[in-house]
This record gives sequence, C-alpha cells and structure tokens, in this order.
Amino acid sequence: MDKIDKMKAAILIKHRALVQLKNALQEMNPADIAQLLGELMGQGDDFGEKELTLIFRVLSKELAAETFAYMDSDLQMILINAFSDRELKAVIDELFLDDTVDIIEEMPANVVSRILKNTDPDRRKQINELLNYPEDSAGSIMTTEFVFFHKGDTVKEAIDRVRSIGLVKETVYTCYVTEQRQLVGTVTLLDLLVADDDKIVEELTDTNVICVGTHEDQESVAHTFAKYDLPALPVVDTENRIVGIITYDDVIDVIREENTEDISVMNAVVPNEDSYLKTGVFKHVKSRIGWLLVLMISATFTGLITNHFEAQIAALPLLVSFISMLTDTGGNCGSQSSAMIIQGMAMDEIHLKDFWKVLFKELRIALVCSFILAVVNFVRIVLIYRNEEGILMIATAVCVALVATVCLAKVIGCILPMVAKKIHVDPAVMSAPLVTTIVDCGSTLIYFSVATHLLDF
Amino acid sequence: MDKIDKMKAAILIKHRALVQLKNALQEMNPADIAQLLGELMGQGDDFGEKELTLIFRVLSKELAAETFAYMDSDLQMILINAFSDRELKAVIDELFLDDTVDIIEEMPANVVSRILKNTDPDRRKQINELLNYPEDSAGSIMTTEFVFFHKGDTVKEAIDRVRSIGLVKETVYTCYVTEQRQLVGTVTLLDLLVADDDKIVEELTDTNVICVGTHEDQESVAHTFAKYDLPALPVVDTENRIVGIITYDDVIDVIREENTEDISVMNAVVPNEDSYLKTGVFKHVKSRIGWLLVLMISATFTGLITNHFEAQIAALPLLVSFISMLTDTGGNCGSQSSAMIIQGMAMDEIHLKDFWKVLFKELRIALVCSFILAVVNFVRIVLIYRNEEGILMIATAVCVALVATVCLAKVIGCILPMVAKKIHVDPAVMSAPLVTTIVDCGSTLIYFSVATHLLDF
Repeated sequence: MDKIDKMKAAILIKHRALVQLKNALQEMNPADIAQLLGELMGQGDDFGEKELTLIFRVLSKELAAETFAYMDSDLQMILINAFSDRELKAVIDELFLDDTVDIIEEMPANVVSRILKNTDPDRRKQINELLNYPEDSAGSIMTTEFVFFHKGDTVKEAIDRVRSIGLVKETVYTCYVTEQRQLVGTVTLLDLLVADDDKIVEELTDTNVICVGTHEDQESVAHTFAKYDLPALPVVDTENRIVGIITYDDVIDVIREENTEDISVMNAVVPNEDSYLKTGVFKHVKSRIGWLLVLMISATFTGLITNHFEAQIAALPLLVSFISMLTDTGGNCGSQSSAMIIQGMAMDEIHLKDFWKVLFKELRIALVCSFILAVVNFVRIVLIYRNEEGILMIATAVCVALVATVCLAKVIGCILPMVAKKIHVDPAVMSAPLVTTIVDCGSTLIYFSVATHLLDF
Repeated sequence: MDKIDKMKAAILIKHRALVQLKNALQEMNPADIAQLLGELMGQGDDFGEKELTLIFRVLSKELAAETFAYMDSDLQMILINAFSDRELKAVIDELFLDDTVDIIEEMPANVVSRILKNTDPDRRKQINELLNYPEDSAGSIMTTEFVFFHKGDTVKEAIDRVRSIGLVKETVYTCYVTEQRQLVGTVTLLDLLVADDDKIVEELTDTNVICVGTHEDQESVAHTFAKYDLPALPVVDTENRIVGIITYDDVIDVIREENTEDISVMNAVVPNEDSYLKTGVFKHVKSRIGWLLVLMISATFTGLITNHFEAQIAALPLLVSFISMLTDTGGNCGSQSSAMIIQGMAMDEIHLKDFWKVLFKELRIALVCSFILAVVNFVRIVLIYRNEEGILMIATAVCVALVATVCLAKVIGCILPMVAKKIHVDPAVMSAPLVTTIVDCGSTLIYFSVATHLLDF
C-alpha cells in the first residue's frame, strides 16, 4: 500500500507523469482519492479544473465511478461539465442508483437534465421514482438494486441468480423472497450456500421480516436498524410490495447527519447540510440570526422585571451582583435536564407516557442539587462579602432564590421537550438557549420577590 | 406476523398457557421479545422472576440466546441466577463472543466467574483476551469470530470452509486472507462465488485493505467505517496479524453512544452509560452537580465586576435591565460557535490547521450578526423606554456593548474547542455552559465600562 500524498501527487501532475500517477492511484481506496483531489483543488495554484479532469481520466472505469461517488458536489460538477456525453454515461452507468440520486439532488437543473439524458430509459425511470420521495423519507435513501427470488425457486436457481447479477447489486448477502411482488421474507446467501441445491427457497425463508414503508422518516429507519442489528432493511409500498432496500452504510450516514442536526438545533442554529468551512459568511449568519433575534427580544421580559424593582436596586446595588450567578445556574440546570430528556427521547428510552415519572425524578434531582448549591453558595457569599452590612440576610435571600430557581429550571427543562414532542415539534428546539431565556425571567422574578420580602424594602 | 402484545402475553403467562405463548413468541424477533420481557418486568404485579424464567425456557435454544443478548443487564442477571449450569452453558455457547464479553462487563464478579466456569477453555481464553483491551478501544468492541483463508487456498476450499463454519461466525461475506497469520487482504464471498472453483484465493484478494489497531479509539473506528462504507473492519495487532473484526452493527452502537456522550458533555453533564429512567436520583445528581458547582463559583467573577460598578448602578438602576439581555445574547452567540466547531471537528471537517480560517470566519459572522442585533435592539429599547431620560445615550451604550459582546463570544466560542483539541481535552467540554460563564464575565465588564464612558459617571 504505497499511498501517495498531496505533495507527491502535485509533483506528478505538474510533470504530467501520468503513468506513475495511474499506478499510484490504482492502489488507493476511492474515498482517499476523492479526499486527495478535494485537497488539491482547495490549494488552488497549480491545480485547477484541467488537472482534476486529467487525473480523473487516468483512473480505471470502475475506480473512477467509485471515486466520483465519494467526491464533494462542487468537484462532481466540474467533472460533469468537462465530460463528453460518453464519459458521463460511463460513470453514471457504474454508479449505484442511490448514489446517482444523491448526486442529482445536489446539481442545478441543466446538469440534471444532462445526466438523465445520458441514462438508460429503465434507469431513468427508477431515478425519477426515487427523486419523487419526500426528503429524508425511507424512499429517498433506499436503492432499488437488490436481489430477490420467487418463493418457488430452487436453491440452485437462486445461487445462479446471485452469481449472474450480484456484482451490480448493492448487497447480495441478504436476499428477498417475493410472491407476486409482495415481500414474504428474507433468505441469506449463507443459508443458500449450506442448503442442498434442489431445496425450495421458501423452506429457507425467514418470514419474520422487519421492513419499513417508503414514507417513513429516516430517523425512525435508523432506530429500526439499531434495534434489530440489520445489514439491510427492505422498503415496501402501501401494498407490501418490496420497492427497495436501505443498507447499513446509508444508515450510518443518516445517524451522523441527524446527530449534527440535533446539535445545531440544540444550540439555536438552523441546521445546514453543507460543511462549516464551505458555507459562506452570510449563509452562516442566516442560520444563526433568527434564533438570536427571537431570544434577544424575549429577554425584554427579564429586563422589564428588573426595571420593576428599580427602587430595591437603587437602595441595595449589591443585589445585582448575584443576578448572573442565579440566572447562569438556572440556565445550566435547565439545559442539563432538557439535554437528558431530548436525548432520552431520541434514543427511544423515554416516552411520553413516562411524563410524570420524569417530572418527579427531575424534581427530586433538583432538590438535592439545589440544596448542595445553596450551602456552598451561602458560604461563598458570606466569605467574600463579610464586610457588607446585613450580608447574612442577603445570602439567605440569594440561597432561597437559588433553590427555587433550580427547581423551576429542572421542571421547565424536562416539561418543554416532552410538550414539544406531544405537539410534533422537534424536541431539540426546547434546549439550552430557549430554556435559559425562560428560566432567566422566572429566576429574576423569584429573586427580587424573595429579596423584597426578606430584606424589608 | 401475529405479534403478541404486553397485555396478551401477561394473560397467557398468568394462565400458564405455555404452548400458545411459545407459538406466539417463536414468530417474533428476539429484539422485540427482549423489549416485551423488559416491559413486563417493569410492570411488577403479576410478573416476577419466576414468570421471566418460565417464558425464557419455552423459547427455542437459538432464539433464547439471541433474546438474551438483547436484554438489559438486570434481566440477564435474574436469568443467570435462575439457570442451572447446563442452561447457562447452552445460552453462552450460542452467543457471539463479543456479546458474551459485553454481558460479562456488566456483571458482578461472582456471576462472571460462574459464566467463565461454564465456558469451554478455548472460548474462555478468547474472552479473557478481549476483556483485557482498554475500554472503548477497537479491541474491546471487536469479535474474534471471523473467517480467514490462506492465500494459497483454492476457491473451492474457501467456499467449503465458509459452508462448514460460516454459521457460527459473525460475518462470512467479507473474509480475510492471511499469510503466516499476517493480514494480506480481503475477499468477498460474492467474488468467490463467481470465480472458478480451482482459482487461487490470492488472485481474487483485494490487497488495498483498511484496518485498525487493537488500541485505536472506537470513535476513530467509527470515522473509518463512515469514510469507507465498510461492512466490517479487520483489527490487527502491532505485528499486522489479524486478531478480530468489528462489524457495522457494533459501529452503529458506538456512533449512537458517542453522540449521547457528546450531548451530555456539551450540557455540563458527566456522561453515564445507563438509561435515564434506570439511573437513580443520586447518580443523576452526581453526574450534574460537579459542573454546576464549578460554573456557579466561576460566576463569582461576574458578581465582583458588577459589585465594582455599584456607584453607577445606584445612580442609574435602569442599566441593570439590560444585563441579562446582553449576557444571554453573548452566551447564545458563543454556544452557536462552539457547537459548530465542536461538531465540525467531530465530523472531521474542521482541523487544527484551519484555526485562522475559522477565527476569521467567526469574526466576520460576528460583525454581521451583531450589527443586525444592535439595530433591532436600539429600536426596541427606544420604543419601550421612550419616557426615560437620556434613553438615546443609554441605548447607544447598550448597543456598542452588544457588538463587542457578540464578537467576544464568537471568538471565545471558536477558540476554546480548538485549544481543547490541541491539548487533548474533549472539545465538547468547551461548549455552551463554560463559554457562557466566561462570556458573562467579559460582557459585564464591557457593558459597564462602555456605560461609564458614554454616560459620564
């Protein structure tokens, strides 16, 4: 495995040492070649569209197609524009159908029509069908390239079928058994291999088959995969006819994508499928400014509450020193709870029926946490401000408010995500930023009310 | 597929209708049976350890073992305690080696020694080896049950080998080709099937093999999987001898586990592998109180800064009304940036060498965002507090502080995770809670300094 690095590749291409380049690349994995080409293009200078096309053309047909599937869409577009119709057809013919659909989804209309023009009518029909499924549905991530047998086939017929068409299918190791196009079960290649040649496939079929509908959400597809440890999952239409399969590699991508999306939403960013570095400044601003504005304006209420207690603040400015400690602690407690609940629901561990159980648990956690925090805080305040007049009473007011704030925060932090789920809003929206803003309002009100009572204003 | 629900199962077991129960369960998927048993145990009342053991015993040997692998460890423990040595051995013998190791890791010492006592010496040796790999390493999640051929074997010999031992191996679809135990490449079952019987395996071998070392971290294993779309990944020791494989299903679990861990850490919770509902209140408190204390005490600095400007607050209490809007917006901006950077690094899209590029990008995003926020905020303040004296000047001070705060927050939010990565600390630690606390301190200082200057105190 003599991998070729960026420097070496750049030198070879500069000197147009194509034979050496071809030999070096031929040993590499397509994912690595795609990455290398991306890095070379990113450097600019001596490496442009001409060089990219040149390198791509030295790759063998099969390796070229695989490499193409792993490339970023901007590189793919450069190549498509450089290709002759025949070259384009050669690459598209070698691609798996679901990869072709993924590529088409990223391309502008003129490129799409060129791709479709250079595709066999049969394949074109399948591509169009796949393109029609809603975004993020099982249908949109499946491939129609699977192997199926009729339940009356013999083992020999089945194995011969795998031999003859297997190489162009995404997976042959789990095959599907049908009766009048309806899915009746699965059979593994291994079961076929160890069985007698003249056995009937039906006898080997596992009829306890897990499948999903074409319109099922990709997140729930990922759950099913993880729950049953499947290598591939058949997708059926409303009449239980198998129309495609989803393989483990697509699911790994879905899980990673959904996770990135959750983390974005949980941090008040509108999710964006492009990578960070490739996204322009204004697109970044667009994903972020919405929530910032909403949350900033919501903070008006906290401001108004503070404003209401102007007299107390003027009389005892020291009160203000504890506001950020209180609101921060409230925000942290709330985001801890909401994160736990959001993630618990995403992992299918917490359900809506557990509402009261969760609420009661969070309340008990809040009581224990707030007690510890209050004690530490009391000591801290008394130590730091020991020269201030009436500090014992002030510290007491702060700590009482702290306990109430923590309880409020934990309760809001667990209620909001569950309510969101109930009303079919993404629970991840109800996370740190929103919870913090709401808790701020409550904790400020609690704090000044407690202080007003205890400190005799 | 007549699945049996909780109610029906409870009735059947109550009336000890074991034949019906057996028939119903036999049609189900082991993951669903395990879930059903867990739910029944959770209900208490009429369903206890006796009923659990009873149901488990009606399952066929193979289904029983598979169901066992999917169960929670507390249910597994109940069953192990109820098993005779012979029953225990029957279940353990049917399990895949990596599942056995997972079970053992969750059990107390006396149960472990009982399991090992009822295992063949050969298997016991392999289990002990797997147990010795560090937690979360490739070695700890791999299985030693893979199929390998010598490079001189013929295709016929290879297929016969798959036929004879394939059923007890985790995957047979990618097999490994060795020379004196060293890994030289992979060959797929499909390649073997379409080749002539007397061909030599070496000719079909793909020598461009991706593998990982036994001590490699599971997170980087997951990256490799996602990058190369692999069904299984060979694990080699320091001398390039293949010692195990990791399959896609284990990787899906790793990715989900790492996601949960990241979200916990990003919300100031120490990760905990148990599910939310099964974790006791005090264990939850233990995962949360540490960061709450650290962050609360850190807020002391913000308090001291506020305290320093007591005179200004006493003279103009209205100033206080804008603190929480400023610190919240700063916190939100900072957590947006840190989340994007943390996630970008986790997905291998952002690297340390991009430091200046990222910093410059965040700074530009900050300028655009803060300009929009400042304009909206100025209008908001002037509208709401139009009757206050000198409000134009106050609004100006708030907005200048807002711009500075947003820029500070975005810069801190992108620097901290990258610095963490540089010094080999988990970047997820540098997220919303910590960033917010640090930004609070800075934004309070900026705000009061700006106000002091502009408002002529």
